[in-house]
Amino acid sequence: MKPYDLALIQMAARASKDESLKAAGELVREAAGRGAGLVCLPELFATPYFCQTEEHAFFDLAEPANGPTVTELAKVAGQTRTTLVIPFFERRAPGLYHNSLAVAGPDGEALGLYRKMHIPDDPGYYEKFYFAPGDTGFKSFDTAVGPVGTLICWDQWFPEAARLTALAGAMLIVYPTAIGWHPAEKAEYGAVQREAWQLAQRAHALSSHVFTAAVNRVGHEIPPGGGAGIEFWGSSFVAGPMGEILAQASTDKEEILTCRIDPKQVETTRRHWPFLRDRRIDAYAGISRRFADGDR
Amino acid sequence: MKPYDLALIQMAARASKDESLKAAGELVREAAGRGAGLVCLPELFATPYFCQTEEHAFFDLAEPANGPTVTELAKVAGQTRTTLVIPFFERRAPGLYHNSLAVAGPDGEALGLYRKMHIPDDPGYYEKFYFAPGDTGFKSFDTAVGPVGTLICWDQWFPEAARLTALAGAMLIVYPTAIGWHPAEKAEYGAVQREAWQLAQRAHALSSHVFTAAVNRVGHEIPPGGGAGIEFWGSSFVAGPMGEILAQASTDKEEILTCRIDPKQVETTRRHWPFLRDRRIDAYAGISRRFADGDR
Repeated sequence: MKPYDLALIQMAARASKDESLKAAGELVREAAGRGAGLVCLPELFATPYFCQTEEHAFFDLAEPANGPTVTELAKVAGQTRTTLVIPFFERRAPGLYHNSLAVAGPDGEALGLYRKMHIPDDPGYYEKFYFAPGDTGFKSFDTAVGPVGTLICWDQWFPEAARLTALAGAMLIVYPTAIGWHPAEKAEYGAVQREAWQLAQRAHALSSHVFTAAVNRVGHEIPPGGGAGIEFWGSSFVAGPMGEILAQASTDKEEILTCRIDPKQVETTRRHWPFLRDRRIDAYAGISRRFADGDR
Repeated sequence: MKPYDLALIQMAARASKDESLKAAGELVREAAGRGAGLVCLPELFATPYFCQTEEHAFFDLAEPANGPTVTELAKVAGQTRTTLVIPFFERRAPGLYHNSLAVAGPDGEALGLYRKMHIPDDPGYYEKFYFAPGDTGFKSFDTAVGPVGTLICWDQWFPEAARLTALAGAMLIVYPTAIGWHPAEKAEYGAVQREAWQLAQRAHALSSHVFTAAVNRVGHEIPPGGGAGIEFWGSSFVAGPMGEILAQASTDKEEILTCRIDPKQVETTRRHWPFLRDRRIDAYAGISRRFADGDR
Protein backbone atom coordinates (compact mmCIF):
# COMPACT_ATOMS: atom_id res chain seq x y z
CA MET A 1 0.00 0.00 0.00
CA LYS A 2 1.51 3.31 -1.07
CA PRO A 3 1.62 6.67 0.71
CA TYR A 4 -0.95 9.17 -0.50
CA ASP A 5 -2.10 12.72 0.20
CA LEU A 6 -5.28 13.26 2.17
CA ALA A 7 -7.15 16.57 1.76
CA LEU A 8 -9.75 17.85 4.22
CA ILE A 9 -12.08 20.52 2.81
CA GLN A 10 -12.79 22.88 5.71
CA MET A 11 -15.60 25.06 4.37
CA ALA A 12 -18.55 27.27 5.31
CA ALA A 13 -22.16 26.72 4.21
CA ARG A 14 -23.41 28.76 1.26
CA ALA A 15 -26.85 30.36 1.05
CA SER A 16 -28.26 27.70 -1.30
CA LYS A 17 -27.56 24.05 -1.98
CA ASP A 18 -26.62 24.84 -5.59
CA GLU A 19 -23.99 27.29 -4.42
CA SER A 20 -22.67 24.86 -1.81
CA LEU A 21 -22.32 22.05 -4.34
CA LYS A 22 -20.57 24.39 -6.75
CA ALA A 23 -18.15 25.66 -4.07
CA ALA A 24 -17.46 22.13 -2.84
CA GLY A 25 -16.77 20.93 -6.38
CA GLU A 26 -14.28 23.73 -6.92
CA LEU A 27 -12.49 23.00 -3.65
CA VAL A 28 -12.28 19.29 -4.47
CA ARG A 29 -10.80 20.16 -7.88
CA GLU A 30 -8.25 22.39 -6.20
CA ALA A 31 -7.31 19.66 -3.72
CA ALA A 32 -6.97 17.13 -6.53
CA GLY A 33 -4.82 19.61 -8.42
CA ARG A 34 -2.47 19.65 -5.44
CA GLY A 35 -2.18 15.87 -5.69
CA ALA A 36 -4.70 14.58 -3.13
CA GLY A 37 -5.75 10.96 -3.59
CA LEU A 38 -8.46 11.08 -0.92
CA VAL A 39 -10.63 14.15 -0.30
CA CYS A 40 -13.22 14.60 2.49
CA LEU A 41 -16.04 17.13 2.84
CA PRO A 42 -17.63 18.17 6.16
CA GLU A 43 -20.87 16.77 7.60
CA LEU A 44 -24.01 18.06 5.82
CA PHE A 45 -21.81 20.48 3.86
CA ALA A 46 -24.51 21.18 1.26
CA THR A 47 -26.72 23.14 3.67
CA PRO A 48 -26.49 25.35 6.74
CA TYR A 49 -26.56 23.29 9.94
CA PHE A 50 -30.35 23.20 10.06
CA CYS A 51 -30.48 21.10 13.27
CA GLN A 52 -30.21 24.26 15.40
CA THR A 53 -34.04 24.21 15.45
CA GLU A 54 -36.76 21.62 14.92
CA GLU A 55 -38.64 22.54 11.73
CA HIS A 56 -40.62 20.03 9.69
CA ALA A 57 -39.98 22.05 6.54
CA PHE A 58 -36.26 21.25 6.74
CA PHE A 59 -36.95 17.64 5.78
CA ASP A 60 -37.33 19.06 2.26
CA LEU A 61 -33.53 19.47 2.25
CA ALA A 62 -33.08 15.70 2.26
CA GLU A 63 -32.35 13.72 -0.90
CA PRO A 64 -31.86 10.09 -1.85
CA ALA A 65 -28.45 8.52 -2.27
CA ASN A 66 -28.78 9.13 -6.02
CA GLY A 67 -29.84 12.76 -5.52
CA PRO A 68 -27.95 15.84 -6.69
CA THR A 69 -25.39 16.02 -3.86
CA VAL A 70 -23.97 12.54 -4.28
CA THR A 71 -24.41 12.51 -8.06
CA GLU A 72 -22.69 15.82 -8.69
CA LEU A 73 -19.81 15.23 -6.30
CA ALA A 74 -19.24 11.64 -7.47
CA LYS A 75 -18.91 13.09 -10.94
CA VAL A 76 -16.17 15.41 -9.63
CA ALA A 77 -14.44 12.40 -8.04
CA GLY A 78 -14.44 10.71 -11.44
CA GLN A 79 -13.23 13.82 -13.26
CA THR A 80 -10.41 14.40 -10.79
CA ARG A 81 -9.58 10.68 -10.30
CA THR A 82 -9.87 10.97 -6.52
CA THR A 83 -11.64 9.02 -3.80
CA LEU A 84 -14.18 11.38 -2.24
CA VAL A 85 -16.17 11.28 1.02
CA ILE A 86 -19.53 12.99 0.42
CA PRO A 87 -21.75 13.62 3.46
CA PHE A 88 -25.43 14.27 2.73
CA PHE A 89 -28.87 14.51 4.36
CA GLU A 90 -30.42 11.25 3.22
CA ARG A 91 -34.10 10.72 2.43
CA ARG A 92 -34.37 6.95 2.53
CA ALA A 93 -38.17 6.67 2.48
CA PRO A 94 -41.06 9.03 3.21
CA GLY A 95 -40.57 9.99 6.87
CA LEU A 96 -37.24 8.15 7.20
CA TYR A 97 -34.11 10.29 7.11
CA HIS A 98 -30.45 9.74 7.99
CA ASN A 99 -27.28 11.73 8.48
CA SER A 100 -25.24 9.84 5.88
CA LEU A 101 -22.22 9.86 3.64
CA ALA A 102 -21.30 8.19 0.38
CA VAL A 103 -17.81 7.22 -0.67
CA ALA A 104 -17.11 7.68 -4.39
CA GLY A 105 -14.13 6.22 -6.20
CA PRO A 106 -11.92 7.67 -8.95
CA ASP A 107 -14.14 6.00 -11.52
CA GLY A 108 -16.98 8.27 -10.37
CA GLU A 109 -18.98 5.38 -8.91
CA ALA A 110 -20.25 5.23 -5.32
CA LEU A 111 -18.59 2.47 -3.24
CA GLY A 112 -21.27 2.52 -0.57
CA LEU A 113 -22.99 4.40 2.23
CA TYR A 114 -22.38 4.95 5.91
CA ARG A 115 -25.24 6.20 8.10
CA LYS A 116 -24.30 8.04 11.33
CA MET A 117 -24.76 5.54 14.15
CA HIS A 118 -24.67 7.85 17.20
CA ILE A 119 -27.21 10.68 17.06
CA PRO A 120 -26.86 13.64 19.46
CA ASP A 121 -29.58 15.74 20.97
CA ASP A 122 -28.48 18.81 22.86
CA PRO A 123 -29.46 22.48 22.81
CA GLY A 124 -28.71 23.67 19.27
CA TYR A 125 -27.97 20.15 17.98
CA TYR A 126 -31.46 18.64 17.73
CA GLU A 127 -30.44 15.72 15.56
CA LYS A 128 -32.69 13.09 17.12
CA PHE A 129 -35.61 15.03 15.58
CA TYR A 130 -34.21 14.74 12.07
CA PHE A 131 -32.21 11.52 11.82
CA ALA A 132 -32.99 7.89 12.46
CA PRO A 133 -29.96 6.13 13.97
CA GLY A 134 -27.87 4.43 11.28
CA ASP A 135 -28.20 0.74 10.52
CA THR A 136 -25.11 0.28 8.36
CA GLY A 137 -22.91 -0.74 11.26
CA PHE A 138 -19.29 0.42 11.34
CA LYS A 139 -17.59 0.38 7.98
CA SER A 140 -14.28 0.31 6.20
CA PHE A 141 -14.34 0.91 2.45
CA ASP A 142 -11.75 -0.70 0.19
CA THR A 143 -10.81 2.39 -1.81
CA ALA A 144 -8.17 3.16 -4.39
CA VAL A 145 -5.86 4.49 -1.65
CA GLY A 146 -6.48 1.62 0.78
CA PRO A 147 -9.04 0.78 3.48
CA VAL A 148 -10.79 3.96 4.69
CA GLY A 149 -13.23 3.99 7.61
CA THR A 150 -15.94 6.61 7.98
CA LEU A 151 -17.72 7.94 11.05
CA ILE A 152 -19.68 11.17 11.47
CA CYS A 153 -19.37 13.86 14.17
CA TRP A 154 -21.03 12.60 17.40
CA ASP A 155 -19.60 9.14 16.61
CA GLN A 156 -16.24 10.68 17.44
CA TRP A 157 -16.85 10.52 21.19
CA PHE A 158 -17.38 6.74 21.27
CA PRO A 159 -14.30 4.51 21.42
CA GLU A 160 -16.44 1.54 20.41
CA ALA A 161 -17.15 3.15 17.02
CA ALA A 162 -13.48 3.75 16.24
CA ARG A 163 -12.45 0.30 17.45
CA LEU A 164 -15.07 -1.47 15.34
CA THR A 165 -14.12 0.61 12.30
CA ALA A 166 -10.45 -0.32 12.79
CA LEU A 167 -11.34 -3.99 13.27
CA ALA A 168 -13.18 -3.78 9.95
CA GLY A 169 -9.78 -3.02 8.41
CA ALA A 170 -9.60 0.78 8.24
CA MET A 171 -6.11 2.30 8.46
CA LEU A 172 -7.52 5.82 8.31
CA ILE A 173 -10.81 6.93 9.89
CA VAL A 174 -12.36 10.19 8.67
CA TYR A 175 -14.88 12.14 10.75
CA PRO A 176 -16.94 14.68 8.77
CA THR A 177 -18.14 17.05 11.47
CA ALA A 178 -20.24 20.10 12.33
CA ILE A 179 -19.26 21.23 15.80
CA GLY A 180 -18.84 24.66 17.26
CA TRP A 181 -19.17 26.98 20.19
CA HIS A 182 -22.32 28.40 21.67
CA PRO A 183 -21.19 32.06 21.80
CA ALA A 184 -22.34 32.43 25.41
CA GLU A 185 -20.19 29.47 26.51
CA LYS A 186 -17.10 30.15 24.45
CA ALA A 187 -15.13 32.27 26.88
CA GLU A 188 -15.58 29.92 29.83
CA TYR A 189 -15.66 26.47 28.23
CA GLY A 190 -14.50 26.91 24.64
CA ALA A 191 -10.88 25.85 25.04
CA VAL A 192 -11.73 22.76 27.12
CA GLN A 193 -14.43 21.72 24.63
CA ARG A 194 -12.20 21.98 21.60
CA GLU A 195 -9.32 20.23 23.34
CA ALA A 196 -11.60 17.38 24.46
CA TRP A 197 -12.83 17.01 20.89
CA GLN A 198 -9.29 16.62 19.62
CA LEU A 199 -8.27 14.41 22.53
CA ALA A 200 -11.01 11.88 21.78
CA GLN A 201 -10.05 11.47 18.14
CA ARG A 202 -6.30 11.46 18.81
CA ALA A 203 -6.91 8.67 21.34
CA HIS A 204 -8.92 6.62 18.82
CA ALA A 205 -5.91 6.83 16.50
CA LEU A 206 -3.64 5.67 19.31
CA SER A 207 -5.88 2.86 20.60
CA SER A 208 -5.95 1.03 17.27
CA HIS A 209 -2.86 2.62 15.65
CA VAL A 210 -4.68 4.10 12.71
CA PHE A 211 -4.74 7.62 11.29
CA THR A 212 -7.78 9.72 12.22
CA ALA A 213 -8.93 12.89 10.48
CA ALA A 214 -11.67 15.33 11.44
CA VAL A 215 -13.05 17.73 8.84
CA ASN A 216 -15.23 20.47 10.31
CA ARG A 217 -17.15 23.43 8.92
CA VAL A 218 -16.39 27.09 9.73
CA GLY A 219 -18.60 30.14 10.04
CA HIS A 220 -21.04 31.61 12.52
CA GLU A 221 -24.52 30.37 11.56
CA ILE A 222 -27.65 32.03 12.97
CA PRO A 223 -30.81 29.92 12.64
CA PRO A 224 -33.73 31.38 10.61
CA GLY A 225 -35.68 32.35 13.75
CA GLY A 226 -32.70 34.27 15.17
CA GLY A 227 -30.68 33.57 18.29
CA ALA A 228 -27.00 33.40 19.19
CA GLY A 229 -26.34 30.57 16.74
CA ILE A 230 -23.28 28.36 16.58
CA GLU A 231 -19.74 29.47 15.82
CA PHE A 232 -18.32 26.40 14.06
CA TRP A 233 -14.75 26.02 15.24
CA GLY A 234 -13.00 24.59 12.20
CA SER A 235 -9.73 23.14 13.56
CA SER A 236 -9.84 20.24 11.14
CA PHE A 237 -6.88 18.00 11.87
CA VAL A 238 -5.10 14.74 11.18
CA ALA A 239 -3.63 12.47 13.89
CA GLY A 240 -1.05 9.73 13.37
CA PRO A 241 -0.99 6.20 14.83
CA MET A 242 0.52 7.34 18.14
CA GLY A 243 -2.14 10.02 18.52
CA GLU A 244 0.23 12.80 17.48
CA ILE A 245 -1.19 15.76 15.54
CA LEU A 246 0.21 15.80 11.99
CA ALA A 247 -1.72 18.74 10.53
CA GLN A 248 -4.16 21.29 11.88
CA ALA A 249 -6.36 23.97 10.28
CA SER A 250 -7.47 27.38 11.56
CA THR A 251 -10.59 27.96 13.67
CA ASP A 252 -12.24 30.38 11.26
CA LYS A 253 -11.01 30.16 7.66
CA GLU A 254 -12.02 28.09 4.68
CA GLU A 255 -9.01 26.01 3.74
CA ILE A 256 -7.80 22.78 2.23
CA LEU A 257 -5.75 20.91 4.81
CA THR A 258 -3.48 18.31 3.26
CA CYS A 259 -1.46 15.60 4.96
CA ARG A 260 0.73 12.75 3.73
CA ILE A 261 -0.60 9.37 4.89
CA ASP A 262 1.75 6.38 4.88
CA PRO A 263 -0.27 3.24 5.65
CA LYS A 264 2.95 1.33 6.43
CA GLN A 265 3.14 3.29 9.69
CA VAL A 266 0.07 1.42 10.90
CA GLU A 267 1.80 -1.94 10.85
CA THR A 268 5.12 -0.59 12.13
CA THR A 269 3.41 1.02 15.13
CA ARG A 270 1.31 -2.07 15.86
CA ARG A 271 4.44 -4.26 15.90
CA HIS A 272 5.93 -2.09 18.62
CA TRP A 273 2.68 -1.61 20.56
CA PRO A 274 0.78 -4.88 20.04
CA PHE A 275 -2.62 -3.87 21.40
CA LEU A 276 -4.52 -5.96 18.86
CA ARG A 277 -2.62 -9.04 20.05
CA ASP A 278 -3.57 -8.47 23.69
CA ARG A 279 -7.24 -7.46 23.59
CA ARG A 280 -9.21 -9.60 26.08
CA ILE A 281 -12.01 -10.52 23.69
CA ASP A 282 -13.21 -13.16 26.16
CA ALA A 283 -14.01 -10.43 28.68
CA TYR A 284 -15.64 -7.65 26.63
CA ALA A 285 -19.23 -8.89 26.30
CA GLY A 286 -20.40 -6.31 28.85
CA ILE A 287 -19.70 -3.55 26.29
CA SER A 288 -23.08 -4.47 24.80
CA ARG A 289 -24.88 -3.53 28.02
CA ARG A 290 -26.24 -0.12 28.92
CA PHE A 291 -24.80 -0.31 32.46
CA ALA A 292 -23.58 -3.09 34.73
CA ASP A 293 -25.93 -2.43 37.65
CA GLY A 294 -27.62 -5.79 37.15
CA ASP A 295 -24.63 -7.89 38.12
CA ARG A 296 -23.16 -6.19 41.16
CA MET B 1 -21.11 11.57 47.68
CA LYS B 2 -18.61 14.01 49.15
CA PRO B 3 -15.39 15.43 47.68
CA TYR B 4 -12.22 13.77 48.96
CA ASP B 5 -8.47 13.96 48.50
CA LEU B 6 -6.73 11.34 46.39
CA ALA B 7 -3.01 10.68 46.99
CA LEU B 8 -0.76 8.90 44.50
CA ILE B 9 2.46 7.52 45.99
CA GLN B 10 5.08 7.90 43.27
CA MET B 11 8.01 5.89 44.63
CA ALA B 12 11.16 3.98 43.72
CA ALA B 13 11.84 0.33 44.53
CA ARG B 14 13.99 -0.41 47.58
CA ALA B 15 16.66 -3.11 47.70
CA SER B 16 14.52 -5.54 49.73
CA LYS B 17 10.82 -6.20 50.10
CA ASP B 18 11.01 -5.37 53.82
CA GLU B 19 12.46 -1.97 53.05
CA SER B 20 9.90 -1.32 50.30
CA LEU B 21 6.99 -2.18 52.61
CA LYS B 22 8.41 0.04 55.32
CA ALA B 23 8.93 2.96 52.91
CA ALA B 24 5.47 2.53 51.42
CA GLY B 25 3.89 2.44 54.88
CA GLU B 26 5.61 5.68 55.82
CA LEU B 27 4.50 7.40 52.61
CA VAL B 28 0.90 6.26 53.11
CA ARG B 29 0.99 7.64 56.65
CA GLU B 30 2.33 10.93 55.35
CA ALA B 31 -0.41 11.10 52.70
CA ALA B 32 -3.06 10.31 55.29
CA GLY B 33 -1.59 13.01 57.52
CA ARG B 34 -2.21 15.48 54.70
CA GLY B 35 -5.86 14.45 54.63
CA ALA B 36 -6.03 11.87 51.83
CA GLY B 37 -9.08 9.62 51.89
CA LEU B 38 -7.87 7.35 49.08
CA VAL B 39 -4.21 6.41 48.60
CA CYS B 40 -2.71 4.39 45.72
CA LEU B 41 0.64 2.65 45.42
CA PRO B 42 2.38 1.80 42.10
CA GLU B 43 2.29 -1.58 40.36
CA LEU B 44 4.48 -4.23 42.05
CA PHE B 45 5.84 -1.51 44.34
CA ALA B 46 7.29 -4.04 46.83
CA THR B 47 10.03 -5.22 44.47
CA PRO B 48 12.20 -4.00 41.63
CA TYR B 49 10.50 -4.46 38.26
CA PHE B 50 11.75 -8.05 37.90
CA CYS B 51 10.03 -8.58 34.51
CA GLN B 52 13.01 -7.07 32.69
CA THR B 53 14.30 -10.65 32.41
CA GLU B 54 12.77 -14.14 32.54
CA GLU B 55 14.08 -15.87 35.67
CA HIS B 56 12.30 -18.77 37.36
CA ALA B 57 13.79 -17.75 40.70
CA PHE B 58 11.76 -14.52 40.67
CA PHE B 59 8.55 -16.49 41.25
CA ASP B 60 9.80 -16.68 44.85
CA LEU B 61 8.86 -12.99 45.14
CA ALA B 62 5.16 -13.85 44.81
CA GLU B 63 2.86 -14.10 47.82
CA PRO B 64 -0.77 -14.99 48.47
CA ALA B 65 -3.43 -12.35 48.96
CA ASN B 66 -2.99 -12.80 52.73
CA GLY B 67 0.81 -12.51 52.50
CA PRO B 68 2.97 -9.79 54.05
CA THR B 69 2.44 -7.07 51.40
CA VAL B 70 -1.35 -6.97 51.60
CA THR B 71 -1.46 -7.74 55.33
CA GLU B 72 1.00 -5.04 56.35
CA LEU B 73 -0.38 -2.35 54.09
CA ALA B 74 -4.01 -3.15 54.97
CA LYS B 75 -2.98 -2.64 58.58
CA VAL B 76 -1.69 0.82 57.66
CA ALA B 77 -5.00 1.56 55.92
CA GLY B 78 -6.81 0.69 59.16
CA GLN B 79 -4.43 2.73 61.30
CA THR B 80 -4.71 5.79 59.06
CA ARG B 81 -8.43 5.36 58.29
CA THR B 82 -7.84 5.49 54.55
CA THR B 83 -8.87 3.41 51.57
CA LEU B 84 -5.69 1.97 50.07
CA VAL B 85 -4.89 0.38 46.70
CA ILE B 86 -2.17 -2.24 47.23
CA PRO B 87 -0.61 -3.83 44.14
CA PHE B 88 1.23 -7.13 44.68
CA PHE B 89 2.74 -10.12 42.88
CA GLU B 90 0.15 -12.80 43.62
CA ARG B 91 0.89 -16.48 44.13
CA ARG B 92 -2.54 -18.01 43.67
CA ALA B 93 -1.51 -21.66 43.48
CA PRO B 94 1.75 -23.50 42.78
CA GLY B 95 2.72 -22.41 39.28
CA LEU B 96 -0.14 -19.88 38.97
CA TYR B 97 0.77 -16.22 39.44
CA HIS B 98 -0.95 -12.91 38.74
CA ASN B 99 -0.16 -9.20 38.63
CA SER B 100 -2.79 -8.18 41.18
CA LEU B 101 -3.96 -5.56 43.60
CA ALA B 102 -6.05 -5.56 46.75
CA VAL B 103 -8.24 -2.69 47.91
CA ALA B 104 -8.26 -2.22 51.68
CA GLY B 105 -10.78 -0.08 53.53
CA PRO B 106 -10.36 2.24 56.53
CA ASP B 107 -11.32 -0.65 58.81
CA GLY B 108 -8.14 -2.42 57.70
CA GLU B 109 -10.06 -5.15 55.86
CA ALA B 110 -9.53 -6.06 52.20
CA LEU B 111 -12.55 -5.27 50.01
CA GLY B 112 -11.41 -7.54 47.20
CA LEU B 113 -8.89 -8.24 44.47
CA TYR B 114 -8.36 -7.17 40.89
CA ARG B 115 -6.06 -9.21 38.65
CA LYS B 116 -4.46 -7.44 35.66
CA MET B 117 -6.46 -8.46 32.61
CA HIS B 118 -4.14 -7.31 29.78
CA ILE B 119 -0.62 -8.74 30.01
CA PRO B 120 2.17 -7.18 27.91
CA ASP B 121 5.18 -8.89 26.44
CA ASP B 122 7.78 -6.66 24.89
CA PRO B 123 11.56 -6.31 25.22
CA GLY B 124 12.17 -5.50 28.90
CA TYR B 125 8.56 -6.15 29.89
CA TYR B 126 8.34 -9.95 29.78
CA GLU B 127 5.12 -10.17 31.75
CA LYS B 128 3.53 -13.04 29.84
CA PHE B 129 6.25 -15.25 31.35
CA TYR B 130 5.28 -14.34 34.90
CA PHE B 131 1.57 -13.61 35.01
CA ALA B 132 -1.53 -15.51 33.98
CA PRO B 133 -4.14 -13.13 32.51
CA GLY B 134 -6.60 -11.97 35.16
CA ASP B 135 -9.99 -13.63 35.58
CA THR B 136 -11.63 -11.10 37.87
CA GLY B 137 -13.16 -9.12 35.01
CA PHE B 138 -13.33 -5.33 35.28
CA LYS B 139 -14.17 -4.05 38.72
CA SER B 140 -15.49 -1.13 40.69
CA PHE B 141 -15.14 -1.32 44.46
CA ASP B 142 -17.68 0.35 46.73
CA THR B 143 -15.25 2.11 49.04
CA ALA B 144 -15.61 4.62 51.85
CA VAL B 145 -14.99 7.48 49.38
CA GLY B 146 -17.30 6.14 46.66
CA PRO B 147 -17.02 3.69 43.77
CA VAL B 148 -13.37 3.22 42.73
CA GLY B 149 -12.32 1.22 39.69
CA THR B 150 -8.91 -0.39 39.38
CA LEU B 151 -6.85 -1.32 36.35
CA ILE B 152 -3.13 -2.03 36.08
CA CYS B 153 -0.54 -0.57 33.65
CA TRP B 154 -0.94 -2.27 30.21
CA ASP B 155 -4.72 -2.19 30.81
CA GLN B 156 -4.39 1.58 30.31
CA TRP B 157 -4.10 1.27 26.54
CA PHE B 158 -7.44 -0.51 26.11
CA PRO B 159 -10.60 1.63 25.94
CA GLU B 160 -12.69 -1.47 26.54
CA ALA B 161 -11.15 -1.89 30.01
CA ALA B 162 -11.92 1.68 31.06
CA ARG B 163 -15.43 1.57 29.62
CA LEU B 164 -16.31 -1.69 31.40
CA THR B 165 -14.88 -0.35 34.66
CA ALA B 166 -16.98 2.81 34.32
CA LEU B 167 -20.07 0.77 33.46
CA ALA B 168 -19.44 -1.18 36.68
CA GLY B 169 -20.02 2.14 38.48
CA ALA B 170 -16.54 3.57 38.99
CA MET B 171 -16.31 7.38 39.12
CA LEU B 172 -12.54 7.25 39.49
CA ILE B 173 -10.26 4.69 37.83
CA VAL B 174 -6.74 4.25 39.22
CA TYR B 175 -3.92 2.73 37.18
CA PRO B 176 -0.96 1.50 39.25
CA THR B 177 1.85 1.42 36.70
CA ALA B 178 5.48 0.57 35.99
CA ILE B 179 6.41 2.19 32.71
CA GLY B 180 9.57 3.88 31.57
CA TRP B 181 12.03 4.61 28.85
CA HIS B 182 14.55 2.28 27.30
CA PRO B 183 17.60 4.59 27.58
CA ALA B 184 18.56 3.95 23.94
CA GLU B 185 15.11 5.05 22.72
CA LYS B 186 14.55 7.99 25.04
CA ALA B 187 16.00 10.78 22.92
CA GLU B 188 14.15 9.81 19.74
CA TYR B 189 10.85 8.42 21.02
CA GLY B 190 10.64 9.35 24.71
CA ALA B 191 8.42 12.40 24.43
CA VAL B 192 5.95 10.74 22.05
CA GLN B 193 5.75 7.64 24.24
CA ARG B 194 5.03 9.55 27.44
CA GLU B 195 2.50 11.81 25.73
CA ALA B 196 0.70 8.81 24.21
CA TRP B 197 0.55 7.20 27.66
CA GLN B 198 -1.12 10.29 29.11
CA LEU B 199 -3.35 10.75 26.09
CA ALA B 200 -4.82 7.25 26.44
CA GLN B 201 -5.76 7.69 30.08
CA ARG B 202 -7.03 11.24 29.63
CA ALA B 203 -9.26 9.95 26.83
CA HIS B 204 -10.64 7.16 29.04
CA ALA B 205 -11.63 9.83 31.54
CA LEU B 206 -13.33 11.80 28.79
CA SER B 207 -15.10 8.86 27.12
CA SER B 208 -17.00 7.89 30.27
CA HIS B 209 -16.69 11.17 32.19
CA VAL B 210 -14.86 9.71 35.14
CA PHE B 211 -11.63 10.73 36.87
CA THR B 212 -8.55 8.69 35.94
CA ALA B 213 -5.30 8.53 37.89
CA ALA B 214 -2.00 6.88 36.98
CA VAL B 215 0.56 6.18 39.70
CA ASN B 216 3.96 5.19 38.35
CA ARG B 217 7.32 4.31 39.87
CA VAL B 218 10.53 6.33 39.43
CA GLY B 219 14.18 5.34 39.25
CA HIS B 220 16.54 3.75 36.77
CA GLU B 221 16.52 0.00 37.40
CA ILE B 222 19.25 -2.24 35.95
CA PRO B 223 18.35 -5.95 35.92
CA PRO B 224 20.59 -8.37 37.89
CA GLY B 225 22.39 -9.59 34.76
CA GLY B 226 23.22 -6.02 33.68
CA GLY B 227 22.08 -4.07 30.63
CA ALA B 228 20.70 -0.63 29.94
CA GLY B 229 17.65 -1.20 32.17
CA ILE B 230 14.53 0.92 32.32
CA GLU B 231 14.28 4.55 33.39
CA PHE B 232 10.82 4.67 34.95
CA TRP B 233 9.29 7.98 33.96
CA GLY B 234 7.17 8.87 36.98
CA SER B 235 4.76 11.56 35.68
CA SER B 236 1.93 10.24 37.83
CA PHE B 237 -1.14 12.33 37.09
CA VAL B 238 -4.87 12.82 37.59
CA ALA B 239 -7.32 13.66 34.78
CA GLY B 240 -10.79 15.12 35.21
CA PRO B 241 -14.04 14.08 33.46
CA MET B 242 -13.27 16.19 30.36
CA GLY B 243 -9.83 14.62 30.06
CA GLU B 244 -8.12 17.69 31.47
CA ILE B 245 -4.98 17.22 33.58
CA LEU B 246 -5.65 18.22 37.19
CA ALA B 247 -2.32 17.28 38.78
CA GLN B 248 0.99 15.99 37.54
CA ALA B 249 4.16 14.71 39.23
CA SER B 250 7.81 14.94 38.17
CA THR B 251 9.57 12.39 35.95
CA ASP B 252 12.26 11.47 38.46
CA LYS B 253 11.40 12.22 42.08
CA GLU B 254 9.62 10.31 44.81
CA GLU B 255 6.58 12.34 45.73
CA ILE B 256 3.05 12.23 47.02
CA LEU B 257 0.75 13.75 44.42
CA THR B 258 -2.59 14.85 45.87
CA CYS B 259 -5.71 15.97 44.06
CA ARG B 260 -9.20 16.95 45.15
CA ILE B 261 -11.84 14.65 43.63
CA ASP B 262 -15.45 15.82 43.52
CA PRO B 263 -17.63 12.92 42.34
CA LYS B 264 -20.48 15.37 41.61
CA GLN B 265 -18.51 16.49 38.54
CA VAL B 266 -19.12 13.09 36.99
CA GLU B 267 -22.87 13.57 36.86
CA THR B 268 -22.68 17.24 35.90
CA THR B 269 -20.39 16.45 32.98
CA ARG B 270 -22.52 13.50 31.85
CA ARG B 271 -25.64 15.70 31.81
CA HIS B 272 -23.95 18.06 29.37
CA TRP B 273 -22.26 15.35 27.28
CA PRO B 274 -24.70 12.42 27.39
CA PHE B 275 -22.49 9.70 25.94
CA LEU B 276 -23.94 6.97 28.15
CA ARG B 277 -27.41 7.81 26.80
CA ASP B 278 -26.33 7.45 23.18
CA ARG B 279 -24.11 4.35 23.15
CA ARG B 280 -25.28 1.99 20.36
CA ILE B 281 -25.31 -1.15 22.47
CA ASP B 282 -27.22 -2.95 19.73
CA ALA B 283 -24.23 -2.55 17.41
CA TYR B 284 -21.20 -3.31 19.60
CA ALA B 285 -21.13 -7.12 19.58
CA GLY B 286 -18.14 -7.12 17.20
CA ILE B 287 -15.97 -5.74 20.03
CA SER B 288 -15.74 -9.35 21.23
CA ARG B 289 -14.04 -10.43 18.00
CA ARG B 290 -10.31 -10.45 17.31
CA PHE B 291 -10.78 -8.86 13.88
CA ALA B 292 -13.67 -8.47 11.45
CA ASP B 293 -12.05 -10.18 8.45
CA GLY B 294 -14.61 -12.96 8.52
CA ASP B 295 -17.55 -10.82 7.55
CA ARG B 296 -16.29 -8.62 4.74
